[in-house]
Amino acid sequence: MLTYEELLDRFSIALNKEQFAGRPAELYEPIAYMMELGGKRLRPVLLLMACDAWGGNIEEALPAALCVEVFHNFTLVHDDIMDNAIMRRGKDTIWNIWGEDTAILAGDTMFTLAIDYLLRTGNGKLNILLHEFTHAARKVCEGQQYDMNFETEEEVSISDYLNMIRLKTSALIGTSLKMGAIIGDAGAEDLSNIHAFGENIGMAFQLKDDLLDVFGNVDKFGKMPGGDILSDKKTFLLLKALSIGSSKDKKVICNYMDDDQGDPEQKIMDITAIYKKLNIDKITTTEMERYYERAKYHLQQLKLPEENKTELISIAKKMMYRDN
Amino acid sequence: MLTYEELLDRFSIALNKEQFAGRPAELYEPIAYMMELGGKRLRPVLLLMACDAWGGNIEEALPAALCVEVFHNFTLVHDDIMDNAIMRRGKDTIWNIWGEDTAILAGDTMFTLAIDYLLRTGNGKLNILLHEFTHAARKVCEGQQYDMNFETEEEVSISDYLNMIRLKTSALIGTSLKMGAIIGDAGAEDLSNIHAFGENIGMAFQLKDDLLDVFGNVDKFGKMPGGDILSDKKTFLLLKALSIGSSKDKKVICNYMDDDQGDPEQKIMDITAIYKKLNIDKITTTEMERYYERAKYHLQQLKLPEENKTELISIAKKMMYRDN
Repeated sequence: MLTYEELLDRFSIALNKEQFAGRPAELYEPIAYMMELGGKRLRPVLLLMACDAWGGNIEEALPAALCVEVFHNFTLVHDDIMDNAIMRRGKDTIWNIWGEDTAILAGDTMFTLAIDYLLRTGNGKLNILLHEFTHAARKVCEGQQYDMNFETEEEVSISDYLNMIRLKTSALIGTSLKMGAIIGDAGAEDLSNIHAFGENIGMAFQLKDDLLDVFGNVDKFGKMPGGDILSDKKTFLLLKALSIGSSKDKKVICNYMDDDQGDPEQKIMDITAIYKKLNIDKITTTEMERYYERAKYHLQQLKLPEENKTELISIAKKMMYRDN
Repeated sequence: MLTYEELLDRFSIALNKEQFAGRPAELYEPIAYMMELGGKRLRPVLLLMACDAWGGNIEEALPAALCVEVFHNFTLVHDDIMDNAIMRRGKDTIWNIWGEDTAILAGDTMFTLAIDYLLRTGNGKLNILLHEFTHAARKVCEGQQYDMNFETEEEVSISDYLNMIRLKTSALIGTSLKMGAIIGDAGAEDLSNIHAFGENIGMAFQLKDDLLDVFGNVDKFGKMPGGDILSDKKTFLLLKALSIGSSKDKKVICNYMDDDQGDPEQKIMDITAIYKKLNIDKITTTEMERYYERAKYHLQQLKLPEENKTELISIAKKMMYRDN
């Protein structure tokens, strides 16, 4: 089985061959810029890894891998508009450099490019791949809308939150793996299990993201901790603290959320202290582990030799125990 | 052959069956609202008309017709954000009612829905239909970017403008007809000719739009004339006036374009007077007729009995000689 690094190499070579050139330059330059910003390339590598696990041809899976990566980047371009995000991966966002109109349109064009890549998949599986892909794409949009709704909703339950990240993040991760398995000719039951494996590691992945945003090491995580706290983002950590904290804890948190005038460093310190007191980091880790165990269960069900599962379990571990 | 009205009925019945319901409601309500706003339904009807001309099954073509109409409406939703457009078809725009973030996301979701519809086309032609569709979709994005570029560019030539409307408007009209012909099993040469027919009537259609915006009858056109003049839109009329007008004419126009403070009614009156003096309406009509003649030429080349072409020629005439 090829490792994550080997598959990432294969993907990067394929991606680098793509020029994202075209006219007008005002449209394609931002697209090329975004695709060169890097990132983990998690979704395309998972797609290739699943294809490899079933003995599929990696070459055949590269167009679908490009499809999910370009689509994922399209969603980031549009998310950055909605979040008024200035920075992404340590660089200026398209929204910040070229403005909103171009960010909208560059994103739309990336969506058409994503489908164009999928069209290059030459093994007669376009129909099912496209079905899986658009289904996940729609879920990503739905998840983003829930995420926006939460910003103004007073009462967001933990199950609302988990449903949101399942749509916004896990769906495309599960689907990327499933698409790779489809190209690798996996059977119906395996397709269902690899999808469930991906959804569950996707959930753990997002919870880890929430955790790193508060407890991450700035040198390793690459950004200052507390961004979610400052923006009053209703993460798993915050919702859990509101759910199990004392009425005094809740009051402190809610006061900070209602008042944008206070000292930001004090806000991060005080809310982080409440999280620590309430063991929110351990509770979140336990929740992550529940998803990890479910993911492992679905992996065990796969009708594959154990040695074909090694890279899948290794990436799941990496997604759980990463520090960036 | 079924008439435009009959095909519009068939399409409307199919569209009305679609609920555009889903969760979160904050996402799907705007989509349902947009799809209920109406409009000419030109692209889906042309698609069905082409299918009918080759004796194809209208039922089979309905999903593709829904695809192009939902996609077209998606582009309008995003265009309205970029144009800060308050009204569309006499009603408030999504941007105006629900704000920018939801307008971005509702548009994105409509794109996924459009592809979902195409997936329902059950006759093994998904690959070619999707290829044609995404190709046109990308052109629409490119055309919109050119249109935005023109807002700030000093020198826009008439050929730049014609290239822009070919991408932004004509491409999808030509492709809608071609998709219908594909479903109707037209041969390769016919596909090329029906596409060229559509592109040319699309050009005439857009020029007519420019013309109606200045010289349209308010009761029939449904909006006050002069919107393009007020927004300094570089239409065929304006670019032609700048190209053939006297230096005094150009100075009047450029002064109005540089100064947003003047009396809007006076601006419309003065610029319209220049257009009239320079015979811009007749020149535009002559240009439209050139495209119409080319469209007719491609129609003549089609290997179809003459009676199968009657509705196509009739709709081309309607698009040329409409007053709204």
